[in-house]
Amino acid sequence: MNITGRSRIKRVPKRAAYDTETIHSILDAAFVAHAGFTVNQQPFVIPTIYGRNADKLYLHGSPASRMLRELQTGVPACIAVTIVDALVLARSAFHHSMNYRSVVAFGHARMIQDAARKTEALRIISEHILAGRWDEVRSPSEKELKATEVLEFSIEEASAKIRTGHPIDDEADYALPVWAGILPLPVLPQSPIPDPGSPEGIGVPASVRSLLGAFRSDTDELRSMDSIAKRS
Amino acid sequence: MNITGRSRIKRVPKRAAYDTETIHSILDAAFVAHAGFTVNQQPFVIPTIYGRNADKLYLHGSPASRMLRELQTGVPACIAVTIVDALVLARSAFHHSMNYRSVVAFGHARMIQDAARKTEALRIISEHILAGRWDEVRSPSEKELKATEVLEFSIEEASAKIRTGHPIDDEADYALPVWAGILPLPVLPQSPIPDPGSPEGIGVPASVRSLLGAFRSDTDELRSMDSIAKRS
Repeated sequence: MNITGRSRIKRVPKRAAYDTETIHSILDAAFVAHAGFTVNQQPFVIPTIYGRNADKLYLHGSPASRMLRELQTGVPACIAVTIVDALVLARSAFHHSMNYRSVVAFGHARMIQDAARKTEALRIISEHILAGRWDEVRSPSEKELKATEVLEFSIEEASAKIRTGHPIDDEADYALPVWAGILPLPVLPQSPIPDPGSPEGIGVPASVRSLLGAFRSDTDELRSMDSIAKRS
Repeated sequence: MNITGRSRIKRVPKRAAYDTETIHSILDAAFVAHAGFTVNQQPFVIPTIYGRNADKLYLHGSPASRMLRELQTGVPACIAVTIVDALVLARSAFHHSMNYRSVVAFGHARMIQDAARKTEALRIISEHILAGRWDEVRSPSEKELKATEVLEFSIEEASAKIRTGHPIDDEADYALPVWAGILPLPVLPQSPIPDPGSPEGIGVPASVRSLLGAFRSDTDELRSMDSIAKRS
């Protein structure tokens, strides 16, 4: 990934990553991004869902959305994605931290006009949020497509920042009678709640079952880390 | 809360809230905020932990942090906080959504110089992340306090946006044989993992036990919503 002063990590550079694979894996793991743009010196930060393909992020919404209206003019933009993994509880207040994965991406957006490309971008956003869902549901009508604006944000530069592992305390503090360690904070999907307006007898779809399965393996991994830590 | 064009919700205004209680409850429930500022027309969006007291947010970090260095000059800033609650799975691609709670706050920050006020702000940040932890650990030394910069961000305007409940589909789509409903996505703290460097026999502290207890009641509530929905 291209790096200049705006994307180079200044603080704790050992936590920085600039490789495309790391950056993409974080972008693919989060549900929400925060998009930044400036209007008359006033910065705005707006949460939005998104999807990714190669080094493009896709954003969508109503043509009346301020975020889309401003970004489509091609102003400099910044999109950040952050996943909190755990609280890191040290023996001193000073060394408390969080385990997290974040990406800050810089670039410009432009509107997608072509109907086929627009539909494909919407599919990418939908598949990002819940893989397999797009083919389970009614596709957008021509009218719905017209009522939706889709932007393509080109990532020109990006950096990732990642912290993992246990607290790092001052040498002298390890003797303190203070519990220290990690409190994992995963997002854990719960049993789906069917819409009361649904016809009877429609089972939970494959898309939802896959997502629940994927998250359950992540939690099992966490739990086994946990039991390893307890044994050690 | 004071409202002008920059904070008034334009899209889906029925989801908007401007009352202080709602805004504060969302700010108090999230772990990470995204701070926006502009340097030479380039917007930056940087994730950060924070704490709140009344209409002030507190941010901290190294004096070398670009975010703190820029914000402390008093430039216009924007801080956003977003909590994802659930995926909202509709019968059409178009009506898919998320249940979420978000706040976008506008204001200016300034550096806290006074050591006592600085320590108090750090305590507020620490208590925001894990209530009760501050009194369990070693307090900041004079040297640590000097190595930490703390900013006070005054919320001058803010708005909240909240979506709850089931999908709202087009009338004709309710007859489609498509599963629709909500997939809850709570953050669920897992068993704490003790640092292998800890002395033997130190139990999980009260701060961690309280957090786990509070989150368990939230999940029980979700589960009972779930069983109600299944019965209906």
